Amino acid sequence: MKKIAVLGITGSIGASTVEVVRAHPDKFQIVLASAHTNQKKLFKLAQEFHIDHLVITSLEANPDSHLLDDLRLYFGEKELLQLITELDIDIVLNAITGAAGLLSSLTTIRAQKDLALANKESLVLAGHLIKKEMQKSRSRLLPVDSEHSAIFQCLASHRNSEIKKVILTASGGPFRTLPLAEFSKITVAQTLAHPTWSMGKKVTIDSATMMNKALEVIEAHWLFDLPYERIEAVLHQHSIIHSFLQFADGSILAQLSKPTMKLPILYALTHPQHIEADIVHTDILSLPPLEFAPLEKDRFPLFFLARKCGETGGLLPTIMNAVNEAAISLFLAEKIHYTDIYRLIAAALEKENNIENPDLETIITTNTEIHQKYLQDYKEYLN
Amino acid sequence: MKKIAVLGITGSIGASTVEVVRAHPDKFQIVLASAHTNQKKLFKLAQEFHIDHLVITSLEANPDSHLLDDLRLYFGEKELLQLITELDIDIVLNAITGAAGLLSSLTTIRAQKDLALANKESLVLAGHLIKKEMQKSRSRLLPVDSEHSAIFQCLASHRNSEIKKVILTASGGPFRTLPLAEFSKITVAQTLAHPTWSMGKKVTIDSATMMNKALEVIEAHWLFDLPYERIEAVLHQHSIIHSFLQFADGSILAQLSKPTMKLPILYALTHPQHIEADIVHTDILSLPPLEFAPLEKDRFPLFFLARKCGETGGLLPTIMNAVNEAAISLFLAEKIHYTDIYRLIAAALEKENNIENPDLETIITTNTEIHQKYLQDYKEYLN
Repeated sequence: MKKIAVLGITGSIGASTVEVVRAHPDKFQIVLASAHTNQKKLFKLAQEFHIDHLVITSLEANPDSHLLDDLRLYFGEKELLQLITELDIDIVLNAITGAAGLLSSLTTIRAQKDLALANKESLVLAGHLIKKEMQKSRSRLLPVDSEHSAIFQCLASHRNSEIKKVILTASGGPFRTLPLAEFSKITVAQTLAHPTWSMGKKVTIDSATMMNKALEVIEAHWLFDLPYERIEAVLHQHSIIHSFLQFADGSILAQLSKPTMKLPILYALTHPQHIEADIVHTDILSLPPLEFAPLEKDRFPLFFLARKCGETGGLLPTIMNAVNEAAISLFLAEKIHYTDIYRLIAAALEKENNIENPDLETIITTNTEIHQKYLQDYKEYLN
Repeated sequence: MKKIAVLGITGSIGASTVEVVRAHPDKFQIVLASAHTNQKKLFKLAQEFHIDHLVITSLEANPDSHLLDDLRLYFGEKELLQLITELDIDIVLNAITGAAGLLSSLTTIRAQKDLALANKESLVLAGHLIKKEMQKSRSRLLPVDSEHSAIFQCLASHRNSEIKKVILTASGGPFRTLPLAEFSKITVAQTLAHPTWSMGKKVTIDSATMMNKALEVIEAHWLFDLPYERIEAVLHQHSIIHSFLQFADGSILAQLSKPTMKLPILYALTHPQHIEADIVHTDILSLPPLEFAPLEKDRFPLFFLARKCGETGGLLPTIMNAVNEAAISLFLAEKIHYTDIYRLIAAALEKENNIENPDLETIITTNTEIHQKYLQDYKEYLN
């Protein structure tokens, strides 16, 4: 249970804070609240949350007025600062409006308490003094402004257990808008002309069929220890946002840049550091509008089929992958149609038997055998 | 200097890896490279990067063929796996295409070397075996796929020193598209009607004038220890992305959600954890196109003036802020026009003297005096 003080509880940020505390009564307890003038609202909140200490900052202290029914009432900034210092508080959320919030921020830091800062004037007027006090204090400075919280969230480290969902983006490849009626006539050249990524042939064809995205879903399952229902994929035609990470509280992080594999490679080699490098210049102001769309079942049936193989697990992903590699070779050799890639894999999955928890030898042998088999006898399975 | 092995160096990911290494000769040294068939390209790269060990995986080993000029040549998968195990390598970047990459991944992990994984089939076919080996190994699994790298980057923690730039987003407030000729007739009611955020009066007016964004720039300067040239602001009318963080290597993280202050507040109270909470549902597929535009000087002159005050520092931000608070009171009381808010602050900044490194008492006294002065004598300064 975190004990929090909410300064400026009757304002707009105060109202949001109250909603947060109301939703998590097991996590937060308000032990001190202040309002500048709105006594009525302050008293109402005090009753709901059993707040022990209340301050009305616009009034001056008056020795006779400190008790109202069961509430302990204080008046003026001086008494507020004294309570911040003396009470047992973990975090002071400073949502006082304007320059009036400065002394509360400084006092919080001096009292070694964490400061959740919604009062930007504290830093605007006296950033140099706040920083100096911070150096002498164990207090943490936690931004509440949505913009600064965004940056703060991007800087923090997170554990897989906090993940609610990952959402992979997919460019949609060359056939994102092609009329479905034309799919049977798709050529190799059309398939190899990827709109946003320049890649090898195999992965370019996998990007067109969206097999690639299904492989990535399976990859994400293993990389981030996530059940399949927590992994999604959306179309994002410009390939600027490379994926989304949604946390348990609903907040989402995204990583973006103009499409280049050099950045992920560099990061893999330098993780956890982003080193100084002149790889890609992404000017936010020159970006196209960032748009997202669902993956259609009719257009990308292989995504859904292959994802399902991943969910089933065992030897099925190996079988699916081996037939896919064979089908791509056949398509590149113009022996089968584009739409036959899906048909061949679907036929194989009907025919072949799954094995749970296969060992390495089984995986490697099956991969070779299935690949050979469908490369040779594909005609049989396409009838 | 990190010693890396690049498996599949002649492919598309290999080419990007080569560019990364070429740009950072002081950081990375390729000690082992493999190609499936493209010998010519492999030899050329070996010469450029002085790669000591080369493997051609499509050929079988032949005792007489291991030396070609000064190059040490190896053949087939078995010799590749042996080199991965025996050589002094920090990171193996596995960019082999397809199921053929599986044994290299497993061998890398067994050899306690970090695995930068571009071969998704390793996990698709044998995720369960890879994970089991990882548990017994010190090896780290570093995703190279752009989507997984995105998630990986979002999970990692970063230091302020890695920041190249922060880019705050601004909704643009109610006057983002109002013709400039109509600014002199703006009413209080118009100003208080913010399109995306529901907030208190003071901050709503500051959002319209963009003073709020300048205050946030100053806040970011102190919060994240950044010089002003590394802090920018862009218009983003829908307030979905709350800010961008650009790292030294050009990669960008963003945090997003439908606009609500509850999320930043909850995060400030639970940092560094995102706890399970039912605050906001942001469906990526229902988002409007995310667009960004520059802040125009004519439309938001106060942003540029106030930002400049932050850069100058000293007592200037206090003076600016005090006059702004006075001007907002005057505007709310309909004593001055909307455009007078800027004029009054500009006049004050001309008139008042700055003090460097002011102490707390000076800040507080000046704030009160300046506020009173401009609240009373505003007419004098608007002529």
